[in-house]
Amino acid sequence: MNATILAIGDELLVGQVVNTNAGWLAGQLTLLGIRVRRVVTVGDHEHDIIDAMEQEWIHSDLLLTSGGLGTTGDDVTREAVAEFFGRKLLLNTSVLARLQESIMERGQTPMAALERMAMMPRDFAALPNPVGQAPGLHYRTARRRRTFVALPGPPEEMKAIFKGSVVARLSVRRDRFRLSHRTLCTAGIPESFLASKLADLTARFEIAFLPSPGQVRLRLTALGKTAEASLDALEKAIRSVLGDAVFGTGEDTLELVVGNLLRQQQRTIAVAESCTGGLVQDLLTNVPGSSDYVAGGVVAYDNRVKRMLLGVQAATLTREGAVSRTTALEMARGVQTAIGADLGLAVTGVAGPGGGTKDKPVGTVWIGLVDGDQAEARLLTLGQDRRRNKQQSAVLALDMARRRLLRH
Amino acid sequence: MNATILAIGDELLVGQVVNTNAGWLAGQLTLLGIRVRRVVTVGDHEHDIIDAMEQEWIHSDLLLTSGGLGTTGDDVTREAVAEFFGRKLLLNTSVLARLQESIMERGQTPMAALERMAMMPRDFAALPNPVGQAPGLHYRTARRRRTFVALPGPPEEMKAIFKGSVVARLSVRRDRFRLSHRTLCTAGIPESFLASKLADLTARFEIAFLPSPGQVRLRLTALGKTAEASLDALEKAIRSVLGDAVFGTGEDTLELVVGNLLRQQQRTIAVAESCTGGLVQDLLTNVPGSSDYVAGGVVAYDNRVKRMLLGVQAATLTREGAVSRTTALEMARGVQTAIGADLGLAVTGVAGPGGGTKDKPVGTVWIGLVDGDQAEARLLTLGQDRRRNKQQSAVLALDMARRRLLRH
Repeated sequence: MNATILAIGDELLVGQVVNTNAGWLAGQLTLLGIRVRRVVTVGDHEHDIIDAMEQEWIHSDLLLTSGGLGTTGDDVTREAVAEFFGRKLLLNTSVLARLQESIMERGQTPMAALERMAMMPRDFAALPNPVGQAPGLHYRTARRRRTFVALPGPPEEMKAIFKGSVVARLSVRRDRFRLSHRTLCTAGIPESFLASKLADLTARFEIAFLPSPGQVRLRLTALGKTAEASLDALEKAIRSVLGDAVFGTGEDTLELVVGNLLRQQQRTIAVAESCTGGLVQDLLTNVPGSSDYVAGGVVAYDNRVKRMLLGVQAATLTREGAVSRTTALEMARGVQTAIGADLGLAVTGVAGPGGGTKDKPVGTVWIGLVDGDQAEARLLTLGQDRRRNKQQSAVLALDMARRRLLRH
Repeated sequence: MNATILAIGDELLVGQVVNTNAGWLAGQLTLLGIRVRRVVTVGDHEHDIIDAMEQEWIHSDLLLTSGGLGTTGDDVTREAVAEFFGRKLLLNTSVLARLQESIMERGQTPMAALERMAMMPRDFAALPNPVGQAPGLHYRTARRRRTFVALPGPPEEMKAIFKGSVVARLSVRRDRFRLSHRTLCTAGIPESFLASKLADLTARFEIAFLPSPGQVRLRLTALGKTAEASLDALEKAIRSVLGDAVFGTGEDTLELVVGNLLRQQQRTIAVAESCTGGLVQDLLTNVPGSSDYVAGGVVAYDNRVKRMLLGVQAATLTREGAVSRTTALEMARGVQTAIGADLGLAVTGVAGPGGGTKDKPVGTVWIGLVDGDQAEARLLTLGQDRRRNKQQSAVLALDMARRRLLRH
């Protein structure tokens, strides 16, 4: 089975928005064993959309569009699809009723906008949008040879409809040409080190490295009926080389894994952040139910806040500075005590671009961790980019907590 | 003048790499006044590349490819281009000499690889690669009607060749066909409301809506020699309808605008976050130099933390609950006092998926703001998605602070 992705939106053609939707959809389709043959991006013009559909439809088992289903003047996908398939747009009253219910909960949308979103080409099914308004569209040819799907452009809406309604409607054949994939998530080892540790395995198996700040995901690929057994063996081999650096599989995140360990151990964590500015806590609280183990914390940008709310000693700040092992440990102990949590985690560093000195250049970061009456600290030497330094520091702080929890 | 971008690479079709090259090139071409008509992505297969070139060449004044110019087995762009244009690949000895010189500086590459990179289709020019090896390719038809450019895939090399060699070769006519763009950033008004407020203008001018949680960017487009004057008039008309909802232009962010206002007024802000879990402070501290006006803050997930660190009254929590106007205001006042800041901003709500009740369903969020001895609060009624609720709440909290600072 092959697929074509048609991304629609002027913003993609003027470089204002990077086409992350197409990348995400391509990844999801690949995981389902569907080969993406091409991705085409066109602007918000009815004739451009129709031209592209004419070129691609005949070559595609699945044609998937994203964008242009909203209700502003430049949203013309619904009309283009109806025109291409030679079908009238009809008001779907059950879709309209659902949209009217949803706005009762979420606030006002003009009636004309709701009616426009409830217009469907004849014979098309509406795919419910659990996080927004505009539903997706689904159509399969009479002999079930080809499938057409239209999704809205906002990434969360596109993802929610794809996962909630599209996957189940794709009749994926599990045969010998099917590629199988598995992802292992690692943290704390730079990509170049991972590559040399895994050099023997990468020479013999298909392993792709997908780096992000502080983390590398390894995507393993195998072919055919015995693929799952091959992936099991390969995963085992990688785990025996990397040990605890592998923190999860698939869509696992560090914050999820840390949360699960805290919940299993019925313990809580409190965080004190300087250079990460709240990012560690933002990540931890992205996990539903995280209020079970995240009590709270402090963002201590100013030294005065480090002293007043966290009890960092004035003498420590004077003698060793805000970016030091002792300050990191006092911040961790201070937040653990102030919040009354089992673990205290602290990050203090120079995110940049300003604030660096000869002794403590931009990218110098200390992480402190206390667990009961035990304590440890770690020094990071990162780069020049402020946002990336924040991300790497946050990820490596979470990874330090994870490794600690594993030893509990 | 119009352009088509052809991105080449299997990694783009399996979702392993997001196609940032196409977005960057589209942005650069747009700035030069060249209209990007479509972007097409195909895999590393000679016939797919040739098929795509056949479809696009005749419609394009400029066809620009990226990827597939390296020397591994899956790099086939050079061969596909030669085949499409019906030209032989010949060894360009001056290119080879340059490559040999460059490896003297940068390390070893096998001679066969160098020779492959020095193969050029007859009549094509080589575009020097200042940061890597493989040169780009440039060709213009005899009557100078159409231009073809091939660039390597690694983003740094692609960008360096584009800026160093391509721009100068594009004879961009600054004439009546040139498109000009401007972006206005708005916050706090949902897209459907914006659309109805601006209905008169969208009917007459080209205005695209780019929504993200809590914000909508408006992209204005005008054509020809008087485009800048048209954009000035359109911007003025939009500002007169939307007033303070327009917070900036271009790449402005709310956190940057809030930061600039605080710096101008020489004031500081402290933030107390419950449901946003640190995100407001993470955004504020993404701005370089934010330590000038962000002193710190508290993440108060647990009610105990709201009482102990922020001084929220136990009676308030019992009588009105953690998600209430009074709690939001006490949190804002508490963090302002604890940190000693000029402004205190607080967010408390039910991010979901759990924690909702009949009276306070998921998506109920209160924002509190104190400024000196003045105070205000605002109720939000958001949706079901946890991450999106966090983002919307954080953006709308920053927007409330911005509007307050404007009135100072």
